[in-house]
Amino acid sequence: MLLLIPGPVTTRPEVRQAMALDYAPWDNEIRPLYIDVRQRVLAIAGGVPGEHAPLTLQGCGHFATEAALRSLVPPGGRILIPAIGAYADRMARLAREAGRVPVSLAVPEGSATSPAAVAAALAADPSIGHVGLVYSETGSGIIHDALAIGAAVRAAGRRMILDAVSAFGALPLDLATQPEIDAVVFTTNKCLEGLPGLGFAVARIDRLRAGAGQAGSWSFDLADILANHEANGWGSFRFTPAIQVAAAFAVALDFFDAEGGQPGRLARYRANADTLHAGMRGIGLEPCLPLSIQGPIVLNVQAPDDPAWSLQGFVDALKRRGFLISNFYNTPAPSFRVGCIGAVTPDDMRAFTTAADAALAEIGVRHRGARKLAAA
Amino acid sequence: MLLLIPGPVTTRPEVRQAMALDYAPWDNEIRPLYIDVRQRVLAIAGGVPGEHAPLTLQGCGHFATEAALRSLVPPGGRILIPAIGAYADRMARLAREAGRVPVSLAVPEGSATSPAAVAAALAADPSIGHVGLVYSETGSGIIHDALAIGAAVRAAGRRMILDAVSAFGALPLDLATQPEIDAVVFTTNKCLEGLPGLGFAVARIDRLRAGAGQAGSWSFDLADILANHEANGWGSFRFTPAIQVAAAFAVALDFFDAEGGQPGRLARYRANADTLHAGMRGIGLEPCLPLSIQGPIVLNVQAPDDPAWSLQGFVDALKRRGFLISNFYNTPAPSFRVGCIGAVTPDDMRAFTTAADAALAEIGVRHRGARKLAAA
Repeated sequence: MLLLIPGPVTTRPEVRQAMALDYAPWDNEIRPLYIDVRQRVLAIAGGVPGEHAPLTLQGCGHFATEAALRSLVPPGGRILIPAIGAYADRMARLAREAGRVPVSLAVPEGSATSPAAVAAALAADPSIGHVGLVYSETGSGIIHDALAIGAAVRAAGRRMILDAVSAFGALPLDLATQPEIDAVVFTTNKCLEGLPGLGFAVARIDRLRAGAGQAGSWSFDLADILANHEANGWGSFRFTPAIQVAAAFAVALDFFDAEGGQPGRLARYRANADTLHAGMRGIGLEPCLPLSIQGPIVLNVQAPDDPAWSLQGFVDALKRRGFLISNFYNTPAPSFRVGCIGAVTPDDMRAFTTAADAALAEIGVRHRGARKLAAA
Repeated sequence: MLLLIPGPVTTRPEVRQAMALDYAPWDNEIRPLYIDVRQRVLAIAGGVPGEHAPLTLQGCGHFATEAALRSLVPPGGRILIPAIGAYADRMARLAREAGRVPVSLAVPEGSATSPAAVAAALAADPSIGHVGLVYSETGSGIIHDALAIGAAVRAAGRRMILDAVSAFGALPLDLATQPEIDAVVFTTNKCLEGLPGLGFAVARIDRLRAGAGQAGSWSFDLADILANHEANGWGSFRFTPAIQVAAAFAVALDFFDAEGGQPGRLARYRANADTLHAGMRGIGLEPCLPLSIQGPIVLNVQAPDDPAWSLQGFVDALKRRGFLISNFYNTPAPSFRVGCIGAVTPDDMRAFTTAADAALAEIGVRHRGARKLAAA
């Protein structure tokens, strides 16, 4: 069964096999593994040793996002969040419930946030200290120009928190040239092709120190995680981690390096997405986005306007053919979504297209377009 | 290599092997697994369906403890925490940084908290709403009489949060007869013999509803997790879980049942601890606690008063013999600690004793007592 959900992704067997061992999280022999993993994610982020800290947090991406918000945005601080989809909404909720003030920036449906709109919103409201940006919006498949939006944030003298959960390792990032980014957050289980259970924040050390004591949560206090490393080295954890996930992640990073790092991974994912986009059109389906703003992470396809269409029925028919996709969608109109990330190739996308064609026939969908046929 | 740290524990190969597969966390076929696991931990806690909710949280035990504190103690609420050791101190810090007010109850070193002392402290301060109790203090190895302390809390009309992270599944618990317990928290990776990466809180539904909206953190809001289940059923997760950990945990619970549940597991751990206690004394070492208050979870042994003693040297010498113990301690005086939990037996404890005897000889420890020999 091939997982084509946008995370957790299909992993390589060597990565999974590292999960099937007992490890002692504080043993001296495992410390070099943590140090290695942290150095490598720092490098992937384009971070500068001594200037940026690679911090690991137990749990999921939302936890890492909340930790970054608490540790870097002061209580009551205002953060502009372009309302690009479901994950932006979630960042706003995480901020609000943590006592920070999200300010929504409306974004026209089906398009990415424009840097000019961010610049205008920041100019109009000097009380906004941060911008919270979702690099790749899993709900819609839209990706942002984080470099151009970051430049607008920098020009306005503000700070940015980048949710790169479904982008990190595939989309480019160079923290060294984007000093406006206080933190980028991501996890082990998307484009880095590890298993779920650990999150990361690569954060500016000066900003963490400036915000020390403001998190309002010991668990989610990134400044305390940094202080723990300064006291106990980079081979340590404050609390028990999902240690099997950490060990498997080290193996996943070996494959990442072998593929040529971020450019190599992006090239494969881009080929996956392009192949899938063409394949879906080839069998009469309509992707939600034009290729110009279609990211390489997840492809959303409009649900056929046919009374026989049933997302769960389609999912089940695909499963009988060896492919597992999400049984829910986050777009405004009905759709189905297919992940282009993980240990999968354009050949897998072609095989999926064949399976989707057969699955639609099996469940009796005849009209595959998203809009009704004109009356005869 | 046998892990004899007090968690993560040595697991069975069948449990570990369930980690080495890809799973889709929201697929319909995995929903019954979540439902099953949640029903089983509810039963182990002695919870009542419809009255108690088994809630799963990504991350580690500290996260589950913070979530319980936030969701059940109101902001500014006062919680009495018997200062029994390192994990009680951690609960106090989690409460304080979350804006709750921990009130420390001094406990004489080397003894468990007396129910009378809890009753007196509650009588003296009517502003205290909760008691936060660590069932088994990993730092010292002391276990509490949670039933008797709970009775004192109940008689005083107060509430209790029980940190059972290193006790759950081995020490008895019956929430049905302890209505003063708002929540018990624990994880997958201690006495239930799963792998680390998920926490649990089994909490009173009425108390969660009464406290809805007070968590001050979406991630750690147990009332929101409950609301999510009420909307989406018990086969759901709000956020991506460490899904391999969940799958392995289901296998671990099968072994738990096969052993006769909590009484069977306690009997084996008690035999482990008794065998180890006798073994340590047999080779001239002095356990920190008398058997009367020595819990079956972790045995702390006083460091030999010999200039050749080195905890790391001892740990390394043991590792060469196939045993891994903690390379740090949480007792006031130097000690080493050995976990009695996990997929290990009294035979393993005897083999460990032989290895410890040889390891001490190898590192040159001649005087094994914790106190200096009287001058000749």
